[in-house]
Amino acid sequence: MNVEVGESFGRWPGGDDAASLAVVSSASVACGFHAGDYNAMLRIVELAGDGPVALGAHPGYPDLMGFGYRRLDMTPREIRAMVLYQVGALQAMVVAAGRRLHHVKPHGALYLQTLVDPDVAGAVVDAVASVDPDLFVYTTAGTVCEAVATAAGLGVVTEFFPDRPLSADGSLLVNWADHFDPSPANVAARVASFLDHGAVPAVGGGMVAVSGDCLCVHTDNPAGAAVPAAVVDELRRRGVTVAAPQPVERPGR
Amino acid sequence: MNVEVGESFGRWPGGDDAASLAVVSSASVACGFHAGDYNAMLRIVELAGDGPVALGAHPGYPDLMGFGYRRLDMTPREIRAMVLYQVGALQAMVVAAGRRLHHVKPHGALYLQTLVDPDVAGAVVDAVASVDPDLFVYTTAGTVCEAVATAAGLGVVTEFFPDRPLSADGSLLVNWADHFDPSPANVAARVASFLDHGAVPAVGGGMVAVSGDCLCVHTDNPAGAAVPAAVVDELRRRGVTVAAPQPVERPGR
Amino acid sequence: MNVEVGESFGRWPGGDDAASLAVVSSASVACGFHAGDYNAMLRIVELAGDGPVALGAHPGYPDLMGFGYRRLDMTPREIRAMVLYQVGALQAMVVAAGRRLHHVKPHGALYLQTLVDPDVAGAVVDAVASVDPDLFVYTTAGTVCEAVATAAGLGVVTEFFPDRPLSADGSLLVNWADHFDPSPANVAARVASFLDHGAVPAVGGGMVAVSGDCLCVHTDNPAGAAVPAAVVDELRRRGVTVAAPQPVERPGR
Amino acid sequence: MNVEVGESFGRWPGGDDAASLAVVSSASVACGFHAGDYNAMLRIVELAGDGPVALGAHPGYPDLMGFGYRRLDMTPREIRAMVLYQVGALQAMVVAAGRRLHHVKPHGALYLQTLVDPDVAGAVVDAVASVDPDLFVYTTAGTVCEAVATAAGLGVVTEFFPDRPLSADGSLLVNWADHFDPSPANVAARVASFLDHGAVPAVGGGMVAVSGDCLCVHTDNPAGAAVPAAVVDELRRRGVTVAAPQPVERPGR
Repeated sequence: MNVEVGESFGRWPGGDDAASLAVVSSASVACGFHAGDYNAMLRIVELAGDGPVALGAHPGYPDLMGFGYRRLDMTPREIRAMVLYQVGALQAMVVAAGRRLHHVKPHGALYLQTLVDPDVAGAVVDAVASVDPDLFVYTTAGTVCEAVATAAGLGVVTEFFPDRPLSADGSLLVNWADHFDPSPANVAARVASFLDHGAVPAVGGGMVAVSGDCLCVHTDNPAGAAVPAAVVDELRRRGVTVAAPQPVERPGR
Repeated sequence: MNVEVGESFGRWPGGDDAASLAVVSSASVACGFHAGDYNAMLRIVELAGDGPVALGAHPGYPDLMGFGYRRLDMTPREIRAMVLYQVGALQAMVVAAGRRLHHVKPHGALYLQTLVDPDVAGAVVDAVASVDPDLFVYTTAGTVCEAVATAAGLGVVTEFFPDRPLSADGSLLVNWADHFDPSPANVAARVASFLDHGAVPAVGGGMVAVSGDCLCVHTDNPAGAAVPAAVVDELRRRGVTVAAPQPVERPGR
Repeated sequence: MNVEVGESFGRWPGGDDAASLAVVSSASVACGFHAGDYNAMLRIVELAGDGPVALGAHPGYPDLMGFGYRRLDMTPREIRAMVLYQVGALQAMVVAAGRRLHHVKPHGALYLQTLVDPDVAGAVVDAVASVDPDLFVYTTAGTVCEAVATAAGLGVVTEFFPDRPLSADGSLLVNWADHFDPSPANVAARVASFLDHGAVPAVGGGMVAVSGDCLCVHTDNPAGAAVPAAVVDELRRRGVTVAAPQPVERPGR
Repeated sequence: MNVEVGESFGRWPGGDDAASLAVVSSASVACGFHAGDYNAMLRIVELAGDGPVALGAHPGYPDLMGFGYRRLDMTPREIRAMVLYQVGALQAMVVAAGRRLHHVKPHGALYLQTLVDPDVAGAVVDAVASVDPDLFVYTTAGTVCEAVATAAGLGVVTEFFPDRPLSADGSLLVNWADHFDPSPANVAARVASFLDHGAVPAVGGGMVAVSGDCLCVHTDNPAGAAVPAAVVDELRRRGVTVAAPQPVERPGR
């Protein structure tokens, strides 16, 4: 179970990260380009401490005004440099705290591009693999990014977003405020539907099949940290144990 | 012999980094806060390639408008986070290129503060030591920063700036344009004076004693890469070999 | 009665500006340097519409990370240029809406400098006077800024901040969170004390004399728009009418 | 004859604006979003002084890294706010210098969008018209922007860029470095061809018809201010007098 954290900027707050970190198994930390800053990143690393939450980097486009939700015209080479920069910035803080970076998950418009564009996915995956081949890539099952990361030998964790609406074709809706009930009860119900049926209600009616190794929730939901808490309650009721995957020992390393 | 590189931003150029990298033994790379950006940083790492130039991070205050020459009111904790961020960003690019980061040298107003302020020096040194204790710190001999870094067990490289004027008390002049002849000939003459006498002419008259393991030159001199070239010529004439220091093997690592 | 508005950035919210605008007589709008952006500024201008709230510019240092609370080393010439830029940016939106800009009030570290530094006060006042000599300057009574603005022929509105603590010498405390009760009840009580006695309790004990043409409250109080509402209630109870000053007709214009 | 000026940022220089201002009749000033800053803008206004060069605003996307050459996903409402902000910022400096803003010309990706997209053109034109209906809009002849600005009652100045290559269909090439000889001699030859034949050589062969009230040159050409100087020489040889259009007196204003 994954949550996106550190999405503050300067004096402007993000979500309730302490509450979120108390219930999830992994967290993706904003790296200062779409949100977050060096102070917020260090605060998250310290909040996580030596606890069980695996920390990953959540790099996005350099666009604080648009929160990384706007696509920027950048070459794969620029994207690779930008991802290296952000991943390294967080990695240094994690290493300084005596821990190891766990994964990388692109944010916003960059995330959506990696799902369908081999050049963008390749740039992100190459950055990750060249920094540390034991880093996992978090993405959506059945996408270009999953294929590219797997081909590069990286571990992949696929994720389902129970707090975001899906179209009938399985794609995420970006501007969803008018199309979705983000209450803890509804999100927990979607988790139950995912576990029981491998499918959830789609926007516009009908069910859409979903799969994933991981549930990812956001902290910018109106209900805040009550959403991850409701998801955890649903999982506990079913006796599901939550844990982040760990790098396997590989011969010759 | 050290040079500061990567001081471009977007389409605005910095110095002639290729020419500089061809003659020096180590380079300090701007990390995107006072100058430089992810594209410029990756370009420098690629220019250096597998060559002999040791690459270090050159972190500064987040102030593109002021080129990091303005002091910002930040707590030691914020400074530590800011240095971790910038050092990590470059380190990831260096590691991705199959190399290892060599040193850290603070920039501009941050550099000047580390010379005299134990809290600022401590924040920078602690960031460096917690990322990688084999990183060297570049600073000025006889300063607070040298003492703090040495006490923390870090290797220290002291440097002399032959292309910048010194006051009679040994301090650097920040706004020096009207007080100094930055021509290659004068800079080379100062190198000769440093090597022969351990002293150079001070602003206002008289000589000021200088010491250092390393000569550091800038690429934003009006004469550009002709300055480091003139310094290298002077050293060659004297049969001085230039090389960056290497981490010693330490038992137990 | 004045409130500071538009202190959002991108997707990060500021205070409840609609509620604040409903009860005050004038508002100072952040201009994108310490907070606010072009979207937020236009939203405030539209919220104000043709209503009775006079709109002023609230320029600050270019420092989103520090919310303009950090002093930046800038020359008076740079400060003048920076104020012209921000005042003009808001003025164009106000003019485009068929209205006229009412005042200028510096923000944060810039505000505090204008209270004591004639060069900084002069730079701000000169910028204001050269854009439109009918603009009022909002500042604190008895300060350098009041004197400089008056000498330049500008109208001055002096203000008292009932929601911020004062030292016994009358100076504002910047980091006040641990020293002050910002509840609507306490702020209203300070308004009553100001009106009845011309003095309010100082931090550390005793009373401190205060004066002012205007009460200024902030929207970043923990109680939000309940604070200006409580102040307005206190004023109404006393039959005080609230209105922003208007430029007098001057012969020859 | 128009030139784009003020395209510096902080310590990074732009073109030789003083030399350009000495030979042109109007200048479009970068407003701090794609290039330029408050200091650079004020410097241009002071350089222009009471001389004959008409000053206009050159607003672009908020993208210093990309120099405004990347399209950003923004609504027309956001674009209108962004243009108002930048135009107002420069206007205040021009008014403070006792002069009047002359025109607005969008920059880079925003300019290209206004040529073909009625929503973007409408947002820009509406911003201009609501600030001051006597402002001219600079654009390309026969485009959506020309039509929208004319319909809104604004004066339009159409321009031809002799220092940029054109496709056979008349469209500008953005990445032209490999397709064009930007030498002063070639640019002057294109001016001559424009004046004699109303057409210039197109990229890929053949001639392409061009029209325009104004010649616009850039200061970021490799040959710098020698390009506008060569154009002026060509015009002088032909006895062409250069002057910026002036707002006509309109009844009822």
